[in-house]
Amino acid sequence: MTKSANRDEAASRRAALTSRLIAEKLDSFLITSPVNVRYLTGFTGSNGLLWLTPTSARLFTDPRYTTQAAAECSAAISIVRKGPLLNEAAARLKRAKPRKLGFEKSHLSYESYAKLIEELPKSTELVPLDGWVEEARRVKSASEIERIQESVVTNSLAFDRALRKVRPKMTESELAAEIDYQQRKLGAEGTAFSTIVAAGDHSALPHARPRAEAIGLNRLLLLDMGAQQHGYMSDMTRTVVVGKATRRMRQLYQAVLEAQLEAIDAIRPGVLCAEIDRRARITLKRHGLDKQFIHSTGHGLGLEIHESPRLGRTETLRLAPGMVITIEPGVYLPGEGGIRIEDTVLVTESGCDVLTPTPKDLLVI
Amino acid sequence: MTKSANRDEAASRRAALTSRLIAEKLDSFLITSPVNVRYLTGFTGSNGLLWLTPTSARLFTDPRYTTQAAAECSAAISIVRKGPLLNEAAARLKRAKPRKLGFEKSHLSYESYAKLIEELPKSTELVPLDGWVEEARRVKSASEIERIQESVVTNSLAFDRALRKVRPKMTESELAAEIDYQQRKLGAEGTAFSTIVAAGDHSALPHARPRAEAIGLNRLLLLDMGAQQHGYMSDMTRTVVVGKATRRMRQLYQAVLEAQLEAIDAIRPGVLCAEIDRRARITLKRHGLDKQFIHSTGHGLGLEIHESPRLGRTETLRLAPGMVITIEPGVYLPGEGGIRIEDTVLVTESGCDVLTPTPKDLLVI
Repeated sequence: MTKSANRDEAASRRAALTSRLIAEKLDSFLITSPVNVRYLTGFTGSNGLLWLTPTSARLFTDPRYTTQAAAECSAAISIVRKGPLLNEAAARLKRAKPRKLGFEKSHLSYESYAKLIEELPKSTELVPLDGWVEEARRVKSASEIERIQESVVTNSLAFDRALRKVRPKMTESELAAEIDYQQRKLGAEGTAFSTIVAAGDHSALPHARPRAEAIGLNRLLLLDMGAQQHGYMSDMTRTVVVGKATRRMRQLYQAVLEAQLEAIDAIRPGVLCAEIDRRARITLKRHGLDKQFIHSTGHGLGLEIHESPRLGRTETLRLAPGMVITIEPGVYLPGEGGIRIEDTVLVTESGCDVLTPTPKDLLVI
Repeated sequence: MTKSANRDEAASRRAALTSRLIAEKLDSFLITSPVNVRYLTGFTGSNGLLWLTPTSARLFTDPRYTTQAAAECSAAISIVRKGPLLNEAAARLKRAKPRKLGFEKSHLSYESYAKLIEELPKSTELVPLDGWVEEARRVKSASEIERIQESVVTNSLAFDRALRKVRPKMTESELAAEIDYQQRKLGAEGTAFSTIVAAGDHSALPHARPRAEAIGLNRLLLLDMGAQQHGYMSDMTRTVVVGKATRRMRQLYQAVLEAQLEAIDAIRPGVLCAEIDRRARITLKRHGLDKQFIHSTGHGLGLEIHESPRLGRTETLRLAPGMVITIEPGVYLPGEGGIRIEDTVLVTESGCDVLTPTPKDLLVI
């Protein structure tokens, strides 16, 4: 996608948000989450703040990003030479005297909030807004889906390439380094999160960190990996066996795979996210493994690795076409090991597309 | 360092903080920054919250970290099965009815603050605290310095190894991937930040991201890289030339190097951080390049890549033994290129130790 198409898309996202501002009678909205700023402006720097009104958009950033902001961003730009961006924004807001100023309640620190209260006139009402931009980000555009697909393909290719290098004497850390390297060589900006490589009983920790210990033989090997490409994330987990798989390993694997396929089978627009989670859970319950499934079934992804919706017991949202989610049931048996199988999945008009091309039969290498 | 030494160190850090709590008549302190939680407990998971009182310490985390928290953490542990950790902490605080509850004002979102206000009895006073843990983290212990040194050495070795692979046709992204790979192979958990590889005029962007474009011949090549090892960061920038350096490149390089050496020369306990920054700036001014130096001279590092102190014009802190800082002046000429030279430096009793072993003469490869 060209830079100008990016800028057009950012502008149309702002327009949609502006309509909501007007509907809720807000005359200003301060966007402080860097990833939300990126979504609404195209600016990819680490230090940015966006002030949106029904008729204007102004990005604040610092001198390190002068050139980059001008190249990427379709909003007006203020370069802040000294101090936090929020101070400069507060000074401008003070002069603009908004009547109702919305802010991102989960992305504004108490410190910044107190600064706004201190600076702004008493006539300005501060209105905490809950996930307005995250809500807009939940359903992906065609160009976003294209980027996620690209990231997913990179991730799966990196998996294939890294797996060819696996030897029992290789350490978890070495394999993680290999995965990250292959992702980068395939065009990723980096990993979507810290790559998990966990062998044997270490795989029983859902968020295991790679150790300087050998993968070993005849053990489970869990790989949870994701790429970031053009800003967009992918996420995949595969559990393989190096050497020989025991009957027990195969049984556990089949149970998790069944849960994953059942959950995927239930995906279509209108279905409650909690229902997808329930499907995975009842399948594992049939195998007596539901108590060993200690996290939720999945999550949205996009510019961030964890986005709305959450596919957990208590999520009251319903799936909609254009959402991109992970489906990743797992079982964890302390002292024994863990198995997780995860794909990145697009919700379509009629059901879903599993974007991840990597096969899911138990791979014994 | 052993796990139990880690736990002892975390406990003694909490004890120091507890004294301050008592002195300021606070009966509870809620620590919400993950890295501060790590510093005070040893817990390295991504989701943690610490409730400290003069007589107790309780870590809140989720079921993914049950095993890990028990292994790493010396405080009491509550595993929160549902919803945000803060909700569970708020429920417990409600029962404990603290009189004065301190919180980290820059690490608590407005949303969480509002939740505390809603849940806690009116008799509880919420006291915003400013960087208490960051202040403690500013001066590093012997074991922390050891870890930073290890990270610095890994980083420099990775630089050497990656540099041997540089060819004019190699892309910036490929070289960045190579650097990251070498860091991991040398024992890093990952990079301290997104590796910067910027060739030619691209190096004029202080925070350039690697592109899929060839490094080329007879051009500046700026590499800004850091490792994360045992949780601790390193940070180094070198600017080299692939092919032949022009006289102009050499002149610019010498000016930046002079500024860097002058700044390092001024480092000793008691000196104002702003003075170090001024030294770099006046040296560049002598070369007519101060306007091209568009960021501050350096920053503290440790568990995070940017920590207190900041070595900028307005920093009123004074250097103290045990601080670890970067010294990284640079000049940026849009359309032409940029040069930055950066070391990681330990402030000692009598002056400083430059921890970074990589030479600083202009490297032409």
